[in-house]
Amino acid sequence: MNTVVDWPRGAAASGGRCGHVHLVGAGPGDPDLLTLRAARLLAQAEVIVYDHLVGPGVLALAGPDAERICVGKRMRQHSLPQDGINDLLVRLARQGRQVVRLKGGDPFVFGRGGEELQALAAAGIPFEVVPGVTAACGVGAYAGIPLTHRDHAQSCLFVTGHLKDDSCDLDWAALARPRQTVVIYMGLTALPEICRQLVAHGLGPDWPAAVVAQGTLPGQRVVVATLATLADAVAREGLRAPTLTIVGEVVRLREQLALPEHLPQALPLRA
Amino acid sequence: MNTVVDWPRGAAASGGRCGHVHLVGAGPGDPDLLTLRAARLLAQAEVIVYDHLVGPGVLALAGPDAERICVGKRMRQHSLPQDGINDLLVRLARQGRQVVRLKGGDPFVFGRGGEELQALAAAGIPFEVVPGVTAACGVGAYAGIPLTHRDHAQSCLFVTGHLKDDSCDLDWAALARPRQTVVIYMGLTALPEICRQLVAHGLGPDWPAAVVAQGTLPGQRVVVATLATLADAVAREGLRAPTLTIVGEVVRLREQLALPEHLPQALPLRA
Repeated sequence: MNTVVDWPRGAAASGGRCGHVHLVGAGPGDPDLLTLRAARLLAQAEVIVYDHLVGPGVLALAGPDAERICVGKRMRQHSLPQDGINDLLVRLARQGRQVVRLKGGDPFVFGRGGEELQALAAAGIPFEVVPGVTAACGVGAYAGIPLTHRDHAQSCLFVTGHLKDDSCDLDWAALARPRQTVVIYMGLTALPEICRQLVAHGLGPDWPAAVVAQGTLPGQRVVVATLATLADAVAREGLRAPTLTIVGEVVRLREQLALPEHLPQALPLRA
Repeated sequence: MNTVVDWPRGAAASGGRCGHVHLVGAGPGDPDLLTLRAARLLAQAEVIVYDHLVGPGVLALAGPDAERICVGKRMRQHSLPQDGINDLLVRLARQGRQVVRLKGGDPFVFGRGGEELQALAAAGIPFEVVPGVTAACGVGAYAGIPLTHRDHAQSCLFVTGHLKDDSCDLDWAALARPRQTVVIYMGLTALPEICRQLVAHGLGPDWPAAVVAQGTLPGQRVVVATLATLADAVAREGLRAPTLTIVGEVVRLREQLALPEHLPQALPLRA
């Protein structure tokens, strides 16, 4: 293996004004969590291609003349399949346009950003990646749950809880470990299965776990419980996607670290 | 367990002008990766308490009159022990000052942010947490290495490689798994041991791995190799801390996704 870059300089370099795609992380929701670079690129973009997880507060930072194209994706309802998104980005760039491809969180954490860049690279389209605050970090901060802590968790594992064929196919033995925080992106539908499997693989039923919905947004809601009680508590409170689930002893720190004034709509829930 | 917040409203609320501590993530290095909120707080801060990982480009965003206090920490050379940092933050806030506690990356990912907040909470000091782009995301984006990818990695594990008593005490079985990306924060000194243990626990000696030094900064350097060759390659190239190590099949994507013009000082290295 080597790192010599074999950059395909195809169609885009062969004539005409060359478009460009900026793959930009929009952060976890609160527009104030965009990076300086993301905000500047957004203000200058000619076209913005965004997922439904990118909210109106973020899009408001775009220039008034920017074209906005929403490409989905909701659970089981991809407005545009991944291949279609890849093709769209290539087509827009070949028109010579400056494109911002805006993704919730960080584009390289469960965002399929890598796949979109591979398509751009194959087509010879120049691109750049702007990292963002990933949902786990945003939600941890706004919910008062440190992802790591010397006394409780020396590692942090990010996984997705999206269902495939109605089953959740995760490496349970890797998830069910002490002194580790597990963050499950999405996965509201699979929550009962996730909690059951974690207990079956060795975490105690009283192991702390929390679900955060609409993280970092004014409507943020947090349910803190245990693996035994979380799924029922979340169903009872009627949390809706997008959610993030945090599993581990660090969840208990929220009692000390979450200030009421930071959590206008958090749920004080006995579980 | 429950989430009822028992917020200690002690000394700080009992009279005089009340200080405030903003625990702020400074991102991975490039000042352009600060969040809008972080940049605004930095510009308004009266006192900035920062680690040595926060560079001059970020500090330049502070107001001209802000007091700047560097509290370390270098490897085995804590300018100020953690208790001293906690006490300093409490003292500054009790003087009624608006404090920004600035940490590299995200304050809740290996930053001891939780410990500092516990000290503030115990002292009754109001605080707020501003998440940041964690080093793994910043480095992944700038080095052309997606942390997840449907074909290669469905999970991502963050650990620290700091040595304790000259040994690196990690949960090797959790690290050495297929279809997972492992990101090791710091850990340059322990790199030979880390590579050895990962192979001993089941990853192949030809498993891809990379070390990135000075990630996202103009001096960023990347060495791509395998578990068998990485430690020697990094020593040969003389990489210096701070570094981040990325282990997993996604490292191979860098060949496609890292553009030379994005990597002015990256190493094209045959390993």
